[in-house]
Amino acid sequence: MTEHATAVVWHGSGFTLERESLPDPGPGEVLVRVAMSTICGSDLHTTAGHRPTPVPTVLGHEVVGSVVATGGAVRDHRGAVLAPGDRITWMIGTACGSCRRCWAGVPQKCVDVRKYGHEKMSDRWWLNGGFATHCHLLAGTGIVRVPESMPDEVATPANCATATVVCAARRARLSPGDTVVVLGCGMLGLTAVAYARDQGAAQVIACDLDEGRRRAALGFGATAVCGPDELAGVVASVSDGADVVVEVTGSAAAVQSAFDLIGIDGRIALVGSVSPGPEVRFEPSRFVKNLSTVVGSHNYAVDDLAEAVDFLARVPDQRAFADLVPTGYPLERFADAFADARSLRAPRIALGVQR
Amino acid sequence: MTEHATAVVWHGSGFTLERESLPDPGPGEVLVRVAMSTICGSDLHTTAGHRPTPVPTVLGHEVVGSVVATGGAVRDHRGAVLAPGDRITWMIGTACGSCRRCWAGVPQKCVDVRKYGHEKMSDRWWLNGGFATHCHLLAGTGIVRVPESMPDEVATPANCATATVVCAARRARLSPGDTVVVLGCGMLGLTAVAYARDQGAAQVIACDLDEGRRRAALGFGATAVCGPDELAGVVASVSDGADVVVEVTGSAAAVQSAFDLIGIDGRIALVGSVSPGPEVRFEPSRFVKNLSTVVGSHNYAVDDLAEAVDFLARVPDQRAFADLVPTGYPLERFADAFADARSLRAPRIALGVQR
Repeated sequence: MTEHATAVVWHGSGFTLERESLPDPGPGEVLVRVAMSTICGSDLHTTAGHRPTPVPTVLGHEVVGSVVATGGAVRDHRGAVLAPGDRITWMIGTACGSCRRCWAGVPQKCVDVRKYGHEKMSDRWWLNGGFATHCHLLAGTGIVRVPESMPDEVATPANCATATVVCAARRARLSPGDTVVVLGCGMLGLTAVAYARDQGAAQVIACDLDEGRRRAALGFGATAVCGPDELAGVVASVSDGADVVVEVTGSAAAVQSAFDLIGIDGRIALVGSVSPGPEVRFEPSRFVKNLSTVVGSHNYAVDDLAEAVDFLARVPDQRAFADLVPTGYPLERFADAFADARSLRAPRIALGVQR
Repeated sequence: MTEHATAVVWHGSGFTLERESLPDPGPGEVLVRVAMSTICGSDLHTTAGHRPTPVPTVLGHEVVGSVVATGGAVRDHRGAVLAPGDRITWMIGTACGSCRRCWAGVPQKCVDVRKYGHEKMSDRWWLNGGFATHCHLLAGTGIVRVPESMPDEVATPANCATATVVCAARRARLSPGDTVVVLGCGMLGLTAVAYARDQGAAQVIACDLDEGRRRAALGFGATAVCGPDELAGVVASVSDGADVVVEVTGSAAAVQSAFDLIGIDGRIALVGSVSPGPEVRFEPSRFVKNLSTVVGSHNYAVDDLAEAVDFLARVPDQRAFADLVPTGYPLERFADAFADARSLRAPRIALGVQR
């Protein structure tokens, strides 16, 4: 039995490993034992100094774990009471459930949101990210159960990469029969390829500069892969324009290219642009007459997370998802883990388990 | 009993009044006696030479009339068989109902669309627009009944201005409680103001350069009106950004301004940009993090037309809508009607009735 928790604490220029007593969960709160957490691209942005974050903090928000204790009866998103040992994942942030944004279906923009892996530690809430032995969930955190049969390395990205893709697909009205283009074949892009196929897309064209990533996209169900220069031709060979373009690179050139790829009633989902960059341009009358749509998508709602877990449970090749997280490090080896993640050895590097 | 039809025929540089025998409707077709048709902005664009159209043609696509004869059993959009004397309005164009675009819910982009008031006359189909005593509806035209109690001048714009607004509101997910900004207070803008209120918008801010139009917007239910320079301040005084901006002017400056008016999960509906104009620009990461949406909307689907007629039937002040069409001319006075429309004496000038 653990009576202490250990966390990798980020101070703005470096990490320390810290150890403290386990907190008692207050009303509506949950203490979770972390099984695995993965290093997301935004953790790398933060540690590279490209994204300010209040410090000290525990980074990490792609995470899966099991309930240690709850503060009274705490329920999952379907309303079932959680018990110690239940395997769960949870929303990237809290939501009050009563503000205008929560009511409008964008809880990720709750006026009182507190995001795991993004907030300053306090005495009351120091286990506030995934890179730790435990995580302290606040009241108002949407919680989704994870099937026992799902490997940790499949489940861990659910509450960031997978749920983000599900939300973007929903906002872009991805529908059966669609021709879908995915710009970028990292963790989000490969997930988007597989999810588009799962949703009945007739054609999924995956584009990346890197040949290895393009090959990976074929394994996730892409019907065609190519580099940016060939893309317009590949789309034209199967359809008079894409129905949906999912942009996950954040590259200004890729974002701009999306406008020329869509057909009538085409929808562009912008996901990857999370740091300020050059403006993109479009001509309004063509946009109007073609019934075009551009949606920005950032994070997700709790139903998207539930759908993300359901999707990962039903994918025909769960092994392909597990292979995106090839290496796990015990928490103490966080420095090696971050070095590996920075070198892009794999789409995701995990902390918290030894494989 | 009329055995001949008269049409105002556009030849590309001028009009002639022509008279021919009434056609027999073929299978699935309907011969309609036109009660009223109004001169839409796009008719003025065409006659001013800003919009190419095949000639000779009968312009006019905002129209209401009554059934003279049908080719077999022809049904309205709800499935009820039409009979002579039934008062109807109809889609701006035909839809085959079986192509990919029809199936995808964008029948206005049917691969075989033929639009009333936009096509070259043929021997078989010469009554193909609204500026005539009769209109010949082809098979595949969505038809909606118009209540007997609704004045012609209220019903006539339904199948262009009103249905276009309904479709744009649907595409922009206009919802109860929303703060809505309407850019432009002509026919479409005033209709958008009233429809936003009808849909439960909490705030409807109408913007126009012209003070008379702004005053009119108050009569249609705007909660605030202003010019473009004051707009950002007026929005900030009621909300942290608009939920929906409906742009109907087509002005590049107005389109560009919309990006600075929306708040979190804000949706911009572009409607007015129907001629090529300058590009607009936006910064992607702000767009993504704010969950922004831009939709282009052009024409509508048959359910939008049905909702447009229902809306016009339930507006609290039908007189305000009738007053948008203050002057009716008999068909022979088409030249005076177009001159009046060009001088913007009123949002719409009608042909076909004497008031």
